[in-house]
Amino acid sequence: MPQNIVIIGAVALGPKAGCHFKRLDPDSRVTMVDRDNLISYGGCGIPYFISGDVSDPDQLQATSFHMLRDEKFFKDTKDIDVITNTEALSIDREKKTVLIRNILNGKEHELSYDKLVLGTGSRPRNLSIPGSDLEGVFSVSDLNKAIAIKEEVTGGKVGEAVIIGAGAIGLEIAESLADLWGIETSVVEVMNQILPGIISPNMAHMAQHHLEENDVSFYLGEKVKRFEGETRIEKVVTDKRTLNADMVIMAAGVTPNSDIAIKAGLEVSSKGTIVVNERLETSDPDIYAGGDCVEITNLITGKPGYWPLGSLANRQGRVIGTNLAGGKAEFEGAVGSFVIKLFEISMASAGLSLESAKKEGFDAVSAFVVQFDRAHFYPEKDLMYLELVVEKGSGRVLGIQGLGNAGEGMMGRISAVAPLLKYKITTEDISNLELPYSPPFSSAMDILNALGNTAENILAGKNRVIEAAEFSDWWEKRHKGDMLCLDCREWGNAGPFVEKYPEHWKSIPQGELRTRLAEVPKDKKLVLICNTGVRSYEAQITLDQMGIKDSYNLQGGMAAVKKWGLFSEF
Amino acid sequence: MPQNIVIIGAVALGPKAGCHFKRLDPDSRVTMVDRDNLISYGGCGIPYFISGDVSDPDQLQATSFHMLRDEKFFKDTKDIDVITNTEALSIDREKKTVLIRNILNGKEHELSYDKLVLGTGSRPRNLSIPGSDLEGVFSVSDLNKAIAIKEEVTGGKVGEAVIIGAGAIGLEIAESLADLWGIETSVVEVMNQILPGIISPNMAHMAQHHLEENDVSFYLGEKVKRFEGETRIEKVVTDKRTLNADMVIMAAGVTPNSDIAIKAGLEVSSKGTIVVNERLETSDPDIYAGGDCVEITNLITGKPGYWPLGSLANRQGRVIGTNLAGGKAEFEGAVGSFVIKLFEISMASAGLSLESAKKEGFDAVSAFVVQFDRAHFYPEKDLMYLELVVEKGSGRVLGIQGLGNAGEGMMGRISAVAPLLKYKITTEDISNLELPYSPPFSSAMDILNALGNTAENILAGKNRVIEAAEFSDWWEKRHKGDMLCLDCREWGNAGPFVEKYPEHWKSIPQGELRTRLAEVPKDKKLVLICNTGVRSYEAQITLDQMGIKDSYNLQGGMAAVKKWGLFSEF
Repeated sequence: MPQNIVIIGAVALGPKAGCHFKRLDPDSRVTMVDRDNLISYGGCGIPYFISGDVSDPDQLQATSFHMLRDEKFFKDTKDIDVITNTEALSIDREKKTVLIRNILNGKEHELSYDKLVLGTGSRPRNLSIPGSDLEGVFSVSDLNKAIAIKEEVTGGKVGEAVIIGAGAIGLEIAESLADLWGIETSVVEVMNQILPGIISPNMAHMAQHHLEENDVSFYLGEKVKRFEGETRIEKVVTDKRTLNADMVIMAAGVTPNSDIAIKAGLEVSSKGTIVVNERLETSDPDIYAGGDCVEITNLITGKPGYWPLGSLANRQGRVIGTNLAGGKAEFEGAVGSFVIKLFEISMASAGLSLESAKKEGFDAVSAFVVQFDRAHFYPEKDLMYLELVVEKGSGRVLGIQGLGNAGEGMMGRISAVAPLLKYKITTEDISNLELPYSPPFSSAMDILNALGNTAENILAGKNRVIEAAEFSDWWEKRHKGDMLCLDCREWGNAGPFVEKYPEHWKSIPQGELRTRLAEVPKDKKLVLICNTGVRSYEAQITLDQMGIKDSYNLQGGMAAVKKWGLFSEF
Repeated sequence: MPQNIVIIGAVALGPKAGCHFKRLDPDSRVTMVDRDNLISYGGCGIPYFISGDVSDPDQLQATSFHMLRDEKFFKDTKDIDVITNTEALSIDREKKTVLIRNILNGKEHELSYDKLVLGTGSRPRNLSIPGSDLEGVFSVSDLNKAIAIKEEVTGGKVGEAVIIGAGAIGLEIAESLADLWGIETSVVEVMNQILPGIISPNMAHMAQHHLEENDVSFYLGEKVKRFEGETRIEKVVTDKRTLNADMVIMAAGVTPNSDIAIKAGLEVSSKGTIVVNERLETSDPDIYAGGDCVEITNLITGKPGYWPLGSLANRQGRVIGTNLAGGKAEFEGAVGSFVIKLFEISMASAGLSLESAKKEGFDAVSAFVVQFDRAHFYPEKDLMYLELVVEKGSGRVLGIQGLGNAGEGMMGRISAVAPLLKYKITTEDISNLELPYSPPFSSAMDILNALGNTAENILAGKNRVIEAAEFSDWWEKRHKGDMLCLDCREWGNAGPFVEKYPEHWKSIPQGELRTRLAEVPKDKKLVLICNTGVRSYEAQITLDQMGIKDSYNLQGGMAAVKKWGLFSEF
């Protein structure tokens, strides 16, 4: 029997749910309502629109075959009615109606539904910073705001910009402004690292170092107190300094839009997310919800998780579409996955970072590996950096993160692990992970396999490690005299360090260690160093065998500490 | 208690097993024996050495830190003894000794072992073609043979080359010769497609078309009868033609080296592979085997599988190393995965192709999708082609294959599915597959998710499809008059086809179909066409709704048929 479906919100989840449902049930009627005039656009493309990579906002709203996804498009090609510039005020669940109001003329109207879909999305988190209403203070919550930002930027109004928040969107916008518009760009973040909660402090520092090399400044662990200016923003005042600014972009995360759900008496979590089951039904079985306004299950922790991402919204939209048509589709949850391009590098993650894992109560440890993305004899190749987060005892893999210099090789590795995490895989699964192999794409022993092996060795207590961040700390305190760097590389690599730091750096190539054991000091903590951490691990085994046990293998070797920002003079 | 380990074969599995074991048990003794003088090299790099991408054979034998993995390297850095130029003649399992003979001086010697490892590898399949002993007829079975081939090529001796076998190595060598040395290169293959058994005929034809555009010629479905020449190869005679040749390279697959195992009474399969359990023990628990000389479990079919790949050999080597040291590691098997670079494209697969699946008794069907590798609004992007093989009824995913124009995006998609196949995932898992998302890397609805959706629609009978290969057949027979191409694109795309083929091509843009339904002929089989198969699917639903059911959606649309080689004039 034909149904009457009403969808509130027409950006990502709504259109997907509506279109999929119509393909399954062409005789039913679908009406989408959105408060905005622009609908069904790729919101994740906003930073690339601001940068100029995407020249026209229409491109974000177009299909891959260059048709604008506007009201006419939905009517003609999908047989769906769209009502724009119209907000949904309230839901009468008894009568099964939604009260809507046209924003332009104020007229109200009732829409009746058989099933209702809430795709109300999210809005920028309100930090209540005094001066937020000054001209030039923006958020990037929708396409119209992005158009306004770009007008300011192209109009030459902006010499200095301050971004509040070093999450994914903040950093993407920072790159846009600094790279393509040459704007002096600073990022203020209240936490002590960029991408907090997503990437480990160690790898986050590597990415920050790269951004700094590309002229983005960071003020971490600082709280913005107020914005100052006459009518337009002039200064950003934090608890530690004052920054000049012609523009401020707020990118401090988002809050779910669930007011209409709360008003209607639907179940909503303490964080404001609409509660749904695996079929994406709310507490009212005639009302579905998905996208940025709901929470789903974190498949690593089993607890609720919140990831406002277009990719999840689209997939959830399809599930809702199927269920509207009487199907039995489920969306079981997510492990949380992430990727970002930052100038010449990219970073990605899936599952929990070490810090998040510990916060969730896991007794966790991480392994860090640096290796070429392709066969080391293949002419075009680059180093890749991966970190695996594992639970002690069980060896369960809780998360993975990576940094790649170029191309999509690193993204491919994270993509290979992300969908596996829900199966509660262990380090052995990563050691034996089967990936297609050919020298232009990977090593016979792929970096992922090496990562599994390293994690296994660390769990077994056979590889005692420190990471770049920790090494930097030890190195700063080297004058205490209790530490020696034992360089396991050949003299060509080790020599310059020994010459510059004779008291703290010693060279014994790994292949000579057995015969030159007498030269190894026994009264100092040894940091074993090579290019990537492989030979230094072999050295550690030899030292252990010989009874010299106070040694630490520098994970990722010189490649890691240089990426981190140390020893750039070599 | 220290053990005495002997390893026969020192290319991939042997060194990995030996080195890993020594790290776990440094006080034990490891001796590796190899018949060759060159050991521990990356055999998969041979095509890149022949092409000149890798300039020196030493590079294939070097570590990533540029040390040559020769006898001295293994002694100094790994504390492993290597005996080269020495073949293993026989095993005395009672006495636990191996009889070896130095190939250079003929001297024989007995090595005693506590545990023995067989990493004897494989040799080129012998096709017994008359004239195989002519000068200039080569195989690529080891590094010394590769050096000989390259000497001929760089010496200017080769104007025309014929490669026997269109498997991965044959095609990689074909690219090497044609691309970097400008040699007129032909490939003769007894089967009717390139990459038989690995890639579907449809996608294999796309790759062949690309190779042909790069001046490689193919003679498929032809059997080589003999090689002719005085002392050096001059002609290759097949059952259909005679080809001139200054060089022939045999690349018709490999045969496991199991003679020594057979002689020792170990269990060997009818195919000549050494039989091992999941711990990689042979029928004698004191003898392990792995790599190209063993068969493992095909995790899709549950039957034995044979994949002579360096990547599997390395991972198996580690498992053997662990078990030698008293550990309990297992190698459960593989699904079979593959990737190849061919000029500007790459192809990859995991699991079964449609044809292999049918041969294995599965009632299988495939879905084919073409989509951008990145967000369609992102400036740098390219089309990607993926095929998913699924079992009817259960919806179980049996395999996946892909073709990418550039970069590693396609490889990343296949890598995301390969490790999942053993979990018996279904189309729904692919539809909901969680991958990191950001516009420079993917679409919000990634091509993999779209592929899962399409497979689901096909299984549900909602998307009735033909693929490029089938369409090419229909198109050739179009003059029978029972078929009409209904182009669902706008006139700008459809017009040139309608003008050139007015009797066989009609244009009704998908958005106008509802209002122009009267124009659709009801007496012909309709092929619905758009750029990639998305709009034509929408059109099919509309036609179905209106009672016009004899329509077929061209999977992958014009993008697929053009890649296949049709309509290159447009």
